[in-house]
This record gives sequence, C-alpha cells and structure tokens, in this order.
Amino acid sequence: MVIAVDAMGGDLAPEAAVAGALLAAPQVQGTVILVGPAERIETLLRGHPRPANLRVVDAPQIIGMDEDAGRAVKAKPDSSLAVTVNLVRDGEAQAAVSAGNSGAFMFLAQVRLRTLGDLARPAIAVSLPGPQGARILLDAGANMDCRPRHLAEFALMGSIYAEHALGREHPRVALLSIGEESCKGDEVTRAAHELLKLPSTPINFIGNIEGTEILSGDVDVIVADGFAGNVALKTAEGVSHFLLQQMRVEAGRSWRTRLGAWLLHPALHEVKRKLDSEDYGGALLLGVNGICIVGHGRSNDRAICNAILVAQRAVAGGVRERLAEGLQRLATVDRGEDKLNTQTA
Amino acid sequence: MVIAVDAMGGDLAPEAAVAGALLAAPQVQGTVILVGPAERIETLLRGHPRPANLRVVDAPQIIGMDEDAGRAVKAKPDSSLAVTVNLVRDGEAQAAVSAGNSGAFMFLAQVRLRTLGDLARPAIAVSLPGPQGARILLDAGANMDCRPRHLAEFALMGSIYAEHALGREHPRVALLSIGEESCKGDEVTRAAHELLKLPSTPINFIGNIEGTEILSGDVDVIVADGFAGNVALKTAEGVSHFLLQQMRVEAGRSWRTRLGAWLLHPALHEVKRKLDSEDYGGALLLGVNGICIVGHGRSNDRAICNAILVAQRAVAGGVRERLAEGLQRLATVDRGEDKLNTQTA
Repeated sequence: MVIAVDAMGGDLAPEAAVAGALLAAPQVQGTVILVGPAERIETLLRGHPRPANLRVVDAPQIIGMDEDAGRAVKAKPDSSLAVTVNLVRDGEAQAAVSAGNSGAFMFLAQVRLRTLGDLARPAIAVSLPGPQGARILLDAGANMDCRPRHLAEFALMGSIYAEHALGREHPRVALLSIGEESCKGDEVTRAAHELLKLPSTPINFIGNIEGTEILSGDVDVIVADGFAGNVALKTAEGVSHFLLQQMRVEAGRSWRTRLGAWLLHPALHEVKRKLDSEDYGGALLLGVNGICIVGHGRSNDRAICNAILVAQRAVAGGVRERLAEGLQRLATVDRGEDKLNTQTA
Repeated sequence: MVIAVDAMGGDLAPEAAVAGALLAAPQVQGTVILVGPAERIETLLRGHPRPANLRVVDAPQIIGMDEDAGRAVKAKPDSSLAVTVNLVRDGEAQAAVSAGNSGAFMFLAQVRLRTLGDLARPAIAVSLPGPQGARILLDAGANMDCRPRHLAEFALMGSIYAEHALGREHPRVALLSIGEESCKGDEVTRAAHELLKLPSTPINFIGNIEGTEILSGDVDVIVADGFAGNVALKTAEGVSHFLLQQMRVEAGRSWRTRLGAWLLHPALHEVKRKLDSEDYGGALLLGVNGICIVGHGRSNDRAICNAILVAQRAVAGGVRERLAEGLQRLATVDRGEDKLNTQTA
C-alpha cells in the first residue's frame, strides 16, 4: 500500500504535513510519499530519524489555498497537489491526502481519477462524534440540488464505507429530514426515502433522522443533499464553539466558577477532544476512482497523521473496490427510481 | 390589547397554561383570556389571587397533540384552539397563544385568519440565542421547496419583526447558505441572494451566513427555506444537548471533576438558560392576519408566560400592520424576481 501526501497543502504546510507523515509512517503497513519541492522537504526531514517507509517525490509548484481551482490546476501542472493525485491515477499510490485547496483537490480527483462506474456525483463524507464512536455524514457540501438517485448513491457509498473502513456490520443508514415520518421533508427527500426503502436497495435503511439526533441518534450513516448536509455540519461546529466559549465567559465571572472550571478541566478537555476534527482525519471524497482524503485547511501534524491513518483503513478495507461493486448493484434498482422521478417531476 | 391563550394546549395543559397566564397577566397592558372548559379552568384559578385583567372564555372541546390537523379541526368546531383563533379573527383579541397541536394551529391560522396581502406562505420564526441577545431564524419548518420570492418575503417579515418587536434598528438580515460568496448554495438560495441584494428590496441584507455563524454571527435575522431552517434549528438543539450530556458523563468520572462541576454549576446553569427555549417563548407564525405564537408542546408555566409576553411585544410593536405595509412595498421588486425565476427555471 502506498499513500501519497501533498506536503504543501494547508495553512501549516509544509511543516505540519512533514511532521504528520513522520508520526504516521511507523503505523502504516506500506509506504508514505511526501510530495512537494524535494529540497525543502528534505531540509525539514533532516534531524529526525527517517522511517524506512517514508519517501519523497519532487513537485516544484504550489497551489495556494485561495486560488481559483480550475485556473490553478491548468497553470500549475507540476503542483504538489496535481502530482499527488497523478500518483494515484498512475497506480503508484492507492490514496491521496491533502489539506490544501479543496476545490482544486476535488477538481483534480474528478478529472484525473474519474468517478466510479456510472456514478453521477462523488460526495464528501465527514465523521461526526457520537456516544459510541463516529458516524458518517454525506454529502457535506459537494453537491447542490441533488436528485433522489444521488441521495441513494450517497447512502450506498456511506454504507460501504462504514462497513469496510469503520468495521460496522449492516451499517444503519438514515436520511436527514425534518420529521421521522416518510411524508416529512422536501420533495427530493421524500422521493429519496421511497427509493431507499425499496427492498432492492442494498442497504440497512432505518428511515429519517432529524437534526436533533445528528450526534446522539443510533445511526452509522446520515445521508443528505450537500446543502442540508453542509448546514448541519457547520451548525454543529458553530454551536459547539459557541457553547464552549459561553462556558468560558460564564466560568470567568467568579472565583468559585473559575476554580470549578480548573477542576473540571480534564472532563472539558475530553469533551473537546471528542468534538475535535483533528481526531477525525478530514473528509473523504467518496466515489472517485481512488481514495482521497480532504484535510481541513488548518490541519496540524496530528490531523495530517490521522488523515493518513484514515486513508490506510480505507485502502485496507478495499473501499474503492467495494464501492465499484456496490454501485453496479444499485443500477438494478434504477427502474424504481425512474418511476419516482417521474412522479415528483 | 387582548391576548387569547389556549388553556388546553400542550403536554402540561391546562395547569401550565393557567399558571403561565397568572404569571403574565400583571405584566400585560391589557387583557389575557384563557380559553377552554370554563369550569375546569375556574377550579385551577381558585386559591390564587385573580388579576383583574384575566378572563375565561368557555370552549368545551380539546384537540389532542397527535390528532390529524385537518380532521380534528373539522370534528371539533368548539375546541379551545379553534375558539382561541376565532377570537383573533373576530377582532376580540389581537394575538393567539397555544402550545397545543401545532399542525392544527397553523391550519386554523391560515384558514381563519388568512395570509396578509398576497403573501404566498406564512413562515415560522424562532428565536435563537446569541452573544448580544436573540436573533430570529425563519422559516423553521413550515415551507418546503421554496422559491426565491418566498425567501425574500421571509426576509422582509423577519426584518419587520426584528425592528418592531425586538427593537433593532435596521436589522441585519442574512441568508443561510454554505459559503459567504453569492455564488455558493443551491439554485434557490443563489437566486434569492440576487433578489435580496436588489436596492429595491427594503431590507438591510448583509449577505450569506454559514451554519458556523448561526449563534455567533453579527446578525438579527437568518433566512432559510423551511427544510434547511429546520435542519439548522434542530441540529443546534441536538448538539447543545449532546454536549451538555457528554460533559455530565465526563464530569462524573472522578471526585475532582465532580467537585469542579458543582463549583461551576452557576455558570453551567447560566449557559443552559441562554440556550433554553423556555426563555424565548415559542415560535411566531409570521404572515397571517393576526399574531400567533406557537409554543413548544412541552411548555411549562414560564414558557407560556414568556409566549404571552412575546405576543404582547408583537402587538404593541404593530407587527401585523407593519408586515401588511411591508409586503405591499415588496410587490414593487417583483419584476426583478420574475426575471430571476426565469433564469433559474
């Protein structure tokens, strides 16, 4: 197994990427490749014991975080990001990891790796914390204005990922909506619900889930259109930050509460850790012909290390191969969906 | 001013409604009417000093929380909820408050009170906490599959409400989307953004807002389609509960953290209070010909009291009259919207 890491991607690159690869390499059953200006990376590696399975591949150009995706990809054929993706396209690596320009990463992944089978749209899958371990939310923002079929594809991809990379048996798949009943939600969600509950759809569909259950519900995969999924994900982030910050403000008001906060610190730290995206290793771009991990722009070394380990689990679980198989099987339920699309047209 | 309160609405009715009305009456510049089986209400009122401005209107029937809205309204013409709304329709009250069957309440409000002017759809507006006081989110779940024009109407209604009931000058109105740029979001949101930024739209539109900013952003009104709005609202609720619950779990693990939690209790209590829907007094159904406050089914006396005070502020601020005026003014920007609808059709 070979995992290619864009050394120049992210706000803290290249230091965080190099340090993250150094942390991850001893835990990887295969090779980790750092892609970027070779001399600069070698300088950063100097002084550290070099793991035998860590290699460097030269790529002189860098795509900035704020560059226009299409234009940057065209103008910089030898960017660290492009070379990282090319390694996967050419079969020299099985996974690409980057915390760099996510638009450019998705663009490159779709164009160079292509989507699996006749999948319409790849989706961004993110991990959310739950009381008994992580759950997957997809799509977290790649696809607007989905059709019911897209949501069914997301459901299947999420289910396969949860089974083969997270080790869940018969993953419980739910559809994000505004009520539990199948009649609740907008047109596309209601049609997707009908499609997902067809016995021929090869997933364990447990029905709708509301926003209230997004972290606490007994579920492994939450399926949404990219608009609603992104709203839910970012609202969850925003509310956690707001709450912890309000707690700091309130705790600062007296000696009693300040002492309380200090004593409670280990517990607060644990809760923060659970919510912390660094431990979840970034988002997956599911549905392209290769494993792609889109790291958070602010990724530090620990986040990059986790992203590499997430990539390893996805490759070891055969997620790409299972996805290709599963999407073929889904084609058999298309007739049902065509009927549904006609009904809701 | 007369505020009619459905005494039989909500899980804790009639006790909570009666106690809530008793709490609110001394703070109301006008009359509070409790609507329900007169004898039962009088029994509950006995033993309390009776405020001079508290009246009882008899309504023998009760609509259950889980009854089908349309059927219940038809079968029970003398329900406490129907009589409450009728008082507003007949001009005998200016506001209706109920924590009962919200579907039946909305149905009655739309049919008996009718929408203002040629408004297409009323919207549910809820208050969310913020660092410097409440902000309004609408629509919180009444309308699926909105068109750009509907979102513009919601924006205007929210702005007028924030100005005249919350006392904000030039309320800052934002559109919920997945990125700040106007090109971000689904088709309807992008078209609504264009419509809202037209100089002829009489609101202070500050652009898109992401889920991360829903509680912390510098904004007075957040506009969304009912699907996304409901997802955001419920996700915010769910994440707050999850966090506080995880904190309890973690705090219980050692003597140190248990002591810390006890010392920190006043601060935690204050944060919980800020998030607590009881203090926000329920949702408003904006856009019908009268002030309607839809209380949470679990409303206790404090929540009912706050709902009555919210109703009072809305009536005193002339929200209904300002909405009617404002919606007329919005008609002048329709030409722009028609163009946008054609572009995105």
